[in-house]
Amino acid sequence: MTPDELDELDRTESPPVEEEREQFDEDNRLKAEFVDAVTQALDDGDDTRVYELVEPLHPADIADLFELLERDERAPLAKAISDLMTGDVIAELNDHVREDMVEALPPEAVAEIADQLDTDDAVQLIEDLEPEDQAAILAEMEPEGRAAVESALSYPEETAGRLMQRDLVAVPEHMSVGDLIDYLRDNSNLTTEFWEVFIVDPQHKPVGTCQLSWILRTPRAIPLTDVMKRDQTLIPVTMDQEEVALQFQKYALISAAVVDEAGRLVGQLTVDDIVHIIQEEADEDVMLLSGAGDGDINEPIREAYAARVRWLIANMLTAALASTIIATFEDTIAKMVALATLMPIVAGIGGNAGTQTLAVTVRALATNQLTASNAWRAVRREMGIALLNGATVSVVIGSVVTVLFHNPLLGLVIALAMLTNIFIAGLAGVFVPLTLERFKVDPAISSSIFVTMTTDSMGFLAFLGLATISGLVS
Amino acid sequence: MTPDELDELDRTESPPVEEEREQFDEDNRLKAEFVDAVTQALDDGDDTRVYELVEPLHPADIADLFELLERDERAPLAKAISDLMTGDVIAELNDHVREDMVEALPPEAVAEIADQLDTDDAVQLIEDLEPEDQAAILAEMEPEGRAAVESALSYPEETAGRLMQRDLVAVPEHMSVGDLIDYLRDNSNLTTEFWEVFIVDPQHKPVGTCQLSWILRTPRAIPLTDVMKRDQTLIPVTMDQEEVALQFQKYALISAAVVDEAGRLVGQLTVDDIVHIIQEEADEDVMLLSGAGDGDINEPIREAYAARVRWLIANMLTAALASTIIATFEDTIAKMVALATLMPIVAGIGGNAGTQTLAVTVRALATNQLTASNAWRAVRREMGIALLNGATVSVVIGSVVTVLFHNPLLGLVIALAMLTNIFIAGLAGVFVPLTLERFKVDPAISSSIFVTMTTDSMGFLAFLGLATISGLVS
Repeated sequence: MTPDELDELDRTESPPVEEEREQFDEDNRLKAEFVDAVTQALDDGDDTRVYELVEPLHPADIADLFELLERDERAPLAKAISDLMTGDVIAELNDHVREDMVEALPPEAVAEIADQLDTDDAVQLIEDLEPEDQAAILAEMEPEGRAAVESALSYPEETAGRLMQRDLVAVPEHMSVGDLIDYLRDNSNLTTEFWEVFIVDPQHKPVGTCQLSWILRTPRAIPLTDVMKRDQTLIPVTMDQEEVALQFQKYALISAAVVDEAGRLVGQLTVDDIVHIIQEEADEDVMLLSGAGDGDINEPIREAYAARVRWLIANMLTAALASTIIATFEDTIAKMVALATLMPIVAGIGGNAGTQTLAVTVRALATNQLTASNAWRAVRREMGIALLNGATVSVVIGSVVTVLFHNPLLGLVIALAMLTNIFIAGLAGVFVPLTLERFKVDPAISSSIFVTMTTDSMGFLAFLGLATISGLVS
Repeated sequence: MTPDELDELDRTESPPVEEEREQFDEDNRLKAEFVDAVTQALDDGDDTRVYELVEPLHPADIADLFELLERDERAPLAKAISDLMTGDVIAELNDHVREDMVEALPPEAVAEIADQLDTDDAVQLIEDLEPEDQAAILAEMEPEGRAAVESALSYPEETAGRLMQRDLVAVPEHMSVGDLIDYLRDNSNLTTEFWEVFIVDPQHKPVGTCQLSWILRTPRAIPLTDVMKRDQTLIPVTMDQEEVALQFQKYALISAAVVDEAGRLVGQLTVDDIVHIIQEEADEDVMLLSGAGDGDINEPIREAYAARVRWLIANMLTAALASTIIATFEDTIAKMVALATLMPIVAGIGGNAGTQTLAVTVRALATNQLTASNAWRAVRREMGIALLNGATVSVVIGSVVTVLFHNPLLGLVIALAMLTNIFIAGLAGVFVPLTLERFKVDPAISSSIFVTMTTDSMGFLAFLGLATISGLVS
């Protein structure tokens, strides 16, 4: 490799060093003043000034800038900095913002961007488009890139096959460390994005792997088979991305080989693609538990509305059930209106207790910490906590109500109702997600509807029911 | 380096290849049958059988096994497989399980484990212990390890200084690629856990960085200064771990230099330590939003109880406020008990809508997607969604109530109350976390108390208030 060729090594730009980061606030976010300056320059039509401002930024920060701008300012910005609009910027954009921008471009322009990108980023660029738009873009791509993208698209969404890079370094078993270094130096078309070298047999099945630091620390004459590690984590091409992320996390992987059904090496995954998945999967659970749909602040209002209103309507049905229960006790309430004042406390605190247990259980299931082996321990644990919480809260509320209403029986009724409801909340919070998981339903999706329904209904039933049968009202 | 020395290279064990993973279920969790077999062997006192079963596992899976066992089975397991209890197993253990085991060991034994571990793992092992226990363990450690751990402990918790590795490869600017490779081969005491080589000036300040693949692909004669990338992400030693995780994610880093206040290189961070942080920080927000404390299923019951009951008591106070509002309308309710039946729907659906907005806003703030630049857009967006949701839900509930109760005015009252409450929920869901963030309070910690308080109170106030002034009851 000549020094000239060296310049072609793909050395992705990195952010400027700390002292030069005057565009950023103390939390490393782009300063509002900086964003305002860009907006001002765009409004003035001063593209030179826009370029000057944006040019020092890292591609990931340019992507952030697009997200921070209003929707109608994004196209003018893209125009003003067109030669900074590299694949890296596009790849770092939020899905919704990218989709919005891609839809505004002709297929040739999208194809040109896709050709610049790594396969996984190109796939992300077009995977959510309509089939005919996808086809139009693929038709305009270079043959090699197109083949890679088409092959990736042939795997189901959110699997290793969609995420993997086809470019990797794989060598036969007979090589020595020196042979490998010569091979790497002599082949200028190899990727530079690799952190381990895979050693494969003649059928291209992985037999071992070599971390680059081991190669660098080993004399040239040593055979690779003496340096390589034979045990390695192989990721099946159809593995779900959430599972891939758990494997990377658990085994502290930097990269990993992806194999097809026959066990042949077909690609590699690197951890920088996986960190996004870890974040996404955890965020997804927060959003699912609260019924917030996609939960992305860049999601179009119409889509966010559609996702959230469904959840509210579902919750309205469960609230209607609770109402029906209250309605059966109308006579009791008519005799003692104070019950209407107090009943939301019993239902509400039960709901809170249920949500606590639910959040713990759902995340433990999602991270494989909770399995069939320790499910009973988890149930026992939640029952223990529920009893302690129930006892404490009951004593507090029972005492306060007794004093404020000068009515010890009312105090006793609310205390018993509260204890009952917090205990039931604990049971529902752990059994509902365990049951959904057993039936292969994602517990994050619908658990909280069932748990809230239980705590609402049982709260009103326990409180009004006890009030009725205790002879409190008569 | 001789072939003998090669064996000393730290080649951490990896999990066995797919076909041999018969201990695992389809989601790569340890099978219940396998865990039962270990428990059975432990009960039988058959340590040889236990060892046979556990020996093929990767350290991370041995750690999982400990977590899946009952608490009183863990010490016998540790005894049965004592020579498999490497630092890697200890490092992978859940915090609570590790703490529990460490507390049962004498300081010399803990010191021996700590000496085996990387600095960051050793720090994790002892950072949560009482100061006197820490001191006792440190006193028993080897001088070198002790110095590194003491230095790490001198940085605040959850900062880069606590997480970083002191072992790294840093070389002066005058070296060529060949010099570097010779240096790496000749110094057998260097770490093998490095993914880039840092180039430093005589003051030990980073001037550039070289990804290992670039070094391997470059001829020996080329100076490092021609291969290195000058711009790099420098992590200040006091940076908060959440911020570190965001930097790694945003700039797709595999490792990064950590610098002290004078800008000198003092350590490195690698992404495999950071993926845990990403997961932890996202999980923390789920748990904080639902008041579930630490949210770890291995947390002792007593600690989980203490965290959760605080939240329930806080929520009881907000529920008491809602009760007070209901109480002021007792006359209205006495005249029309159906109001008591319907009022929880208005409060409950408002609460759901508020939680949706809150979840979206809190995560957008935590991931730096929401900043001062786009805060107003986020507010406008949430108001738009709230109006759409409110309109839809109001029409549904208003129509149903009109028909079921044969009372159009009651239908109108509940529809207007619902619209008002969902709109207020949207405002609270976005303004509460934005305000807390502005005052440097973590919005995940207390937002949901304020939002629930608002939606409960306003739900009852709007519904009962409108019922009173509309002349519905008279």
